[in-house]
Amino acid sequence: MTKRAAIVGATGYTGSELARFLHSHPDVTLGDLVGHSRAGEPVGMVLPNLQGVIEQNITAFDPDTLASNHDLAFCALPHGASAQTVSALRARGLIVFDLSADFRLRDRDAYAQWYGNHGAPELFGTATYGLVEVYEAAIAESDLIAVPGCYPTSALLGLIPLLQADLIEHTGIIVDAKSGVSGAGRKPGLHAHYSEIAEGFRAYKSAGQHRHIAEIEQELSAAAGATITISFTPHLVPMTRGILATSYASAKPNVDAHAATRAAREMYEGSESVTVLEAGSHPDTAWVRGANRAMISYGHDTRTGRIIIQCAIDNLVKGASGQAVQCMNVRLGLAPATGLPTIGLWP
Amino acid sequence: MTKRAAIVGATGYTGSELARFLHSHPDVTLGDLVGHSRAGEPVGMVLPNLQGVIEQNITAFDPDTLASNHDLAFCALPHGASAQTVSALRARGLIVFDLSADFRLRDRDAYAQWYGNHGAPELFGTATYGLVEVYEAAIAESDLIAVPGCYPTSALLGLIPLLQADLIEHTGIIVDAKSGVSGAGRKPGLHAHYSEIAEGFRAYKSAGQHRHIAEIEQELSAAAGATITISFTPHLVPMTRGILATSYASAKPNVDAHAATRAAREMYEGSESVTVLEAGSHPDTAWVRGANRAMISYGHDTRTGRIIIQCAIDNLVKGASGQAVQCMNVRLGLAPATGLPTIGLWP
Amino acid sequence: MTKRAAIVGATGYTGSELARFLHSHPDVTLGDLVGHSRAGEPVGMVLPNLQGVIEQNITAFDPDTLASNHDLAFCALPHGASAQTVSALRARGLIVFDLSADFRLRDRDAYAQWYGNHGAPELFGTATYGLVEVYEAAIAESDLIAVPGCYPTSALLGLIPLLQADLIEHTGIIVDAKSGVSGAGRKPGLHAHYSEIAEGFRAYKSAGQHRHIAEIEQELSAAAGATITISFTPHLVPMTRGILATSYASAKPNVDAHAATRAAREMYEGSESVTVLEAGSHPDTAWVRGANRAMISYGHDTRTGRIIIQCAIDNLVKGASGQAVQCMNVRLGLAPATGLPTIGLWP
Amino acid sequence: MTKRAAIVGATGYTGSELARFLHSHPDVTLGDLVGHSRAGEPVGMVLPNLQGVIEQNITAFDPDTLASNHDLAFCALPHGASAQTVSALRARGLIVFDLSADFRLRDRDAYAQWYGNHGAPELFGTATYGLVEVYEAAIAESDLIAVPGCYPTSALLGLIPLLQADLIEHTGIIVDAKSGVSGAGRKPGLHAHYSEIAEGFRAYKSAGQHRHIAEIEQELSAAAGATITISFTPHLVPMTRGILATSYASAKPNVDAHAATRAAREMYEGSESVTVLEAGSHPDTAWVRGANRAMISYGHDTRTGRIIIQCAIDNLVKGASGQAVQCMNVRLGLAPATGLPTIGLWP
Repeated sequence: MTKRAAIVGATGYTGSELARFLHSHPDVTLGDLVGHSRAGEPVGMVLPNLQGVIEQNITAFDPDTLASNHDLAFCALPHGASAQTVSALRARGLIVFDLSADFRLRDRDAYAQWYGNHGAPELFGTATYGLVEVYEAAIAESDLIAVPGCYPTSALLGLIPLLQADLIEHTGIIVDAKSGVSGAGRKPGLHAHYSEIAEGFRAYKSAGQHRHIAEIEQELSAAAGATITISFTPHLVPMTRGILATSYASAKPNVDAHAATRAAREMYEGSESVTVLEAGSHPDTAWVRGANRAMISYGHDTRTGRIIIQCAIDNLVKGASGQAVQCMNVRLGLAPATGLPTIGLWP
Repeated sequence: MTKRAAIVGATGYTGSELARFLHSHPDVTLGDLVGHSRAGEPVGMVLPNLQGVIEQNITAFDPDTLASNHDLAFCALPHGASAQTVSALRARGLIVFDLSADFRLRDRDAYAQWYGNHGAPELFGTATYGLVEVYEAAIAESDLIAVPGCYPTSALLGLIPLLQADLIEHTGIIVDAKSGVSGAGRKPGLHAHYSEIAEGFRAYKSAGQHRHIAEIEQELSAAAGATITISFTPHLVPMTRGILATSYASAKPNVDAHAATRAAREMYEGSESVTVLEAGSHPDTAWVRGANRAMISYGHDTRTGRIIIQCAIDNLVKGASGQAVQCMNVRLGLAPATGLPTIGLWP
Repeated sequence: MTKRAAIVGATGYTGSELARFLHSHPDVTLGDLVGHSRAGEPVGMVLPNLQGVIEQNITAFDPDTLASNHDLAFCALPHGASAQTVSALRARGLIVFDLSADFRLRDRDAYAQWYGNHGAPELFGTATYGLVEVYEAAIAESDLIAVPGCYPTSALLGLIPLLQADLIEHTGIIVDAKSGVSGAGRKPGLHAHYSEIAEGFRAYKSAGQHRHIAEIEQELSAAAGATITISFTPHLVPMTRGILATSYASAKPNVDAHAATRAAREMYEGSESVTVLEAGSHPDTAWVRGANRAMISYGHDTRTGRIIIQCAIDNLVKGASGQAVQCMNVRLGLAPATGLPTIGLWP
Repeated sequence: MTKRAAIVGATGYTGSELARFLHSHPDVTLGDLVGHSRAGEPVGMVLPNLQGVIEQNITAFDPDTLASNHDLAFCALPHGASAQTVSALRARGLIVFDLSADFRLRDRDAYAQWYGNHGAPELFGTATYGLVEVYEAAIAESDLIAVPGCYPTSALLGLIPLLQADLIEHTGIIVDAKSGVSGAGRKPGLHAHYSEIAEGFRAYKSAGQHRHIAEIEQELSAAAGATITISFTPHLVPMTRGILATSYASAKPNVDAHAATRAAREMYEGSESVTVLEAGSHPDTAWVRGANRAMISYGHDTRTGRIIIQCAIDNLVKGASGQAVQCMNVRLGLAPATGLPTIGLWP
């Protein structure tokens, strides 16, 4: 019998993408679409691409109702708001895939430093980090999966193979990341106002201000077996979807782009969610738009001894909702790519 | 046993979309990707979103080879070049879905006037026009299907229900259409050069110059049972995909937006490729991007007695490759939406 | 001695453009930048392109202060809010250029029907309509100039020459207009949220709903000497600036594109704000971006007898702030183009 | 008497911008617009924003004719092609502002390594590097000015003050730069094809491949008084104009963002072409679009000890044609900003 999955926080972009994937998923049934502020409205009034396809109404959040007729829930809520919702659903036995930052960190001090108080301290530390390419076995047995952030996904997929294979130095790593505007969510503001975004490019929260640093460093450190500190600069690209992370690391002796490429191809062998391009290639976010796929390449600047790592993802798919469904597939014992688009919408 | 389908002209955008749909089609196998100028190259070098997914090489055109191991072929070639290729494949027994304009017109004089000499005059007039919503029964029995043009699809789906139901006058129809840049194809030129397209908007081939007029008028006349002449103005929108056709027609007495909406909903009842929105709605091309779906709405300007028809499609999907696969599904006795995305990639 | 000009409503896009033009104007001094909600902040915190150039602070609205050290004021406020501000400034003797819709209509009933109650009924009907190409003499002697709306400017500049020269029929005129997103102003909302605008195209307020209809009809009727009723459909283009109006009218006997072009060239002879292109051309909004210039062309569809009129402007310049400064120049006896960019920022 | 200036290579984007600036320059007259392939055509057919403004025809290149009635020439030709043209014009006594890379390098070996053979070896080493903020005195006395490249301008303006003030380490500097598509020029190709650029982001020529590295290192080394080697990664942003360079350098002890800001403000005091924003700000390329202005900010990542330098320019203005006119102004003894837009076209 197919499992039934609810989406809590269905009115934003990650909720919308979850609906797109679950609606056509062969082994899971899309259940309720929960959206506090729009409860009672037809889904198509809120998520216009679903008009004519998904005919139900947005519902209010009621954990008992959800528990009564769902096996799983995806929480696509802002951090802070998510923890208590997750707690309520876990208490009722649902398997939860949380797309917020609330359960990604394993260190309470780091959480407090970057995010403040936690909304469900009793659950802190119990989640599995949902990067399937690293934690597949643990995800398969976990009932609370913290789906990785968009920037962390783009940084980690490229850097982890090099750290695991001991190809780069642990110090001096820089992640210069560029994101489409949908990463800022659906809440209007001048930061996402068309006229002030189109035909412009800028950084934001630079110089150690962005909260995703904690998450990236946690996972890089785990891969390296040593504490890693990075410089991270996010930028806003005048496009809706996509992240390109350009990372810089010092090559260990005798390491070049081909060695890096080989290490990554070994790690991702057989994966339908990561493609490692030829050394010296330049992945474009447009090639993975809409698909649950990262494209990665490695270059070597012989003049400075640096490895340049480029990783392109769709921030809403491999960086959020697609990755969440990939986690669900693993948890349910399905092939990881089940029901997920593997080809980007190009051009 | 599944049928095997070739794509001839696989290196352009419609060829690329055909590959996307056929790769994941449950009942048809993707065969050769034929591309004259790029034969021998890996598909992913030519169509970058297919890297890591489709591993074969582009092949040269050889009708005998194609006939030996394919049941069907999609021809995604420029008009003029397509006719002879279609002829060679039909002669070898393949069912052909032609995305060019070569077989869409049924009147030889009209073809000569708008396009010049025909490349396969012996086949002229033998094709079925592949607008599934109108010609489904005929498509199911045809071995040569002329897939409609992108602009015609956007104009016809909105206007035909009104003509069939006799709700609008036959004279004075205007189609003011706006297309994304991918409609101009993949051949570079200043007409599609990023710096001269972004942040600008203009018309082109206005005042009766665009060849799609013949096709639109043919099908509107068929629907009306009388000769229809239209004004048609295409425009170029600074976006990659999508067409919005805004059409104007004089309402017959006592006809309003609700009557128009009812007529269209009757005609498209049960369709997974057309959604008729509430009267007075405004469909956005972004809502159907990547999906084989048209969204249509009707308004009524009581001050002037005009019905305003808005129809949004993705020019590469419902306006080309998706529609072609929809035709194939009908021809093979499958549900029309089989293997096609029904939800647009939004945002 | 140079005149001193204030900008009331300086924190939006039309206010910003007024500051750009007045800062470098050779014969007028930029005075206060008034902005209710941001008073006290440095201009550059509010209008970021002015950082390093204009160092003063935004001020609160105080008509007495403004009157004490300004000769002129530009009001760039929303309609409704503008009338009382204009009234306060006129009462203190300032020459006022109002960019809102509050004083554009000359018929009280039409104002009531489209806009509701008027904020300064004692001034209603006393303004001069600021379309310099038509009302230059009256503007030169007026102390209250109602700067035309963006859509009306794009529609009127193309159609008025044909009506004045009696080249087109009075009935059946359609204006299908396409605007960049900055026309929606600076207030954030989903209607202007980057992720829901980029790569999409749609109409809005179609079928006789948009308030600019009243203004367009007023001026077309004045040019024709007869009542003109139009169909008007505005659309939203995924770009920041620019309007293209594509208008349709039935040609009178023996009228073609060349006759239309000649009539317009006669009317606009010597103008630095209107360029009439060759018959059959297609003006692009990108060619006039940032410039106080309209580009117009005429085509003739011999199949249907229609004249197709295309007019491209920058909605914030010739459609708003540039036109306001042009009015000011005329009022002050300067050359109309003084201090205004005449070349668009292309590409 | 005003000087008369020719533009050689007038049919591309930098030529077009030169025409925009020189047409309205108060102290210089725009002379011939030379364009090999389009000679004889009206300027407005080639540069559409000039329709109705500049009425002359494009001319063929004839150095004698140019010398007979011009005092100055701007060469906006591709590198390689430029050197011989410059040589012919210099031989006839014209002051030449060369926008190509042909005369920017001072080391013959470096030129040979990055560019190959030089087209006018007798002139190699005789030019002045046209970065006014550094070389103003020399530019004032030079008859051959090598206008800096777009990427180098964006990198140098932010880094030079720190090197001159000895605030950063010489090793480990990274320049991660992001450019609009107009930097790729006007020649069509898939690298600038709208459908393959819009809504996508990628790097190119990464890992030490881009020729601008030589120019950046030359000038950084000059500022530091020591050899500087950098990592440089250029990226393509889906926008037409603008470069943002995000640079990373290790702070010397006790150096923070405020110290960096102070050093830059001292260096650029009184400049109308560089604005140093508050420490921690994030300049946006949209704020300087169309203007001859760089906006720079400095941040300090205390976690890693790095200074993050952000510099935004318009690649076609401060990164090319505006900077060229700025050089001309200095050479002619005019204020550097004469005839140049100082306010960006925003939004």
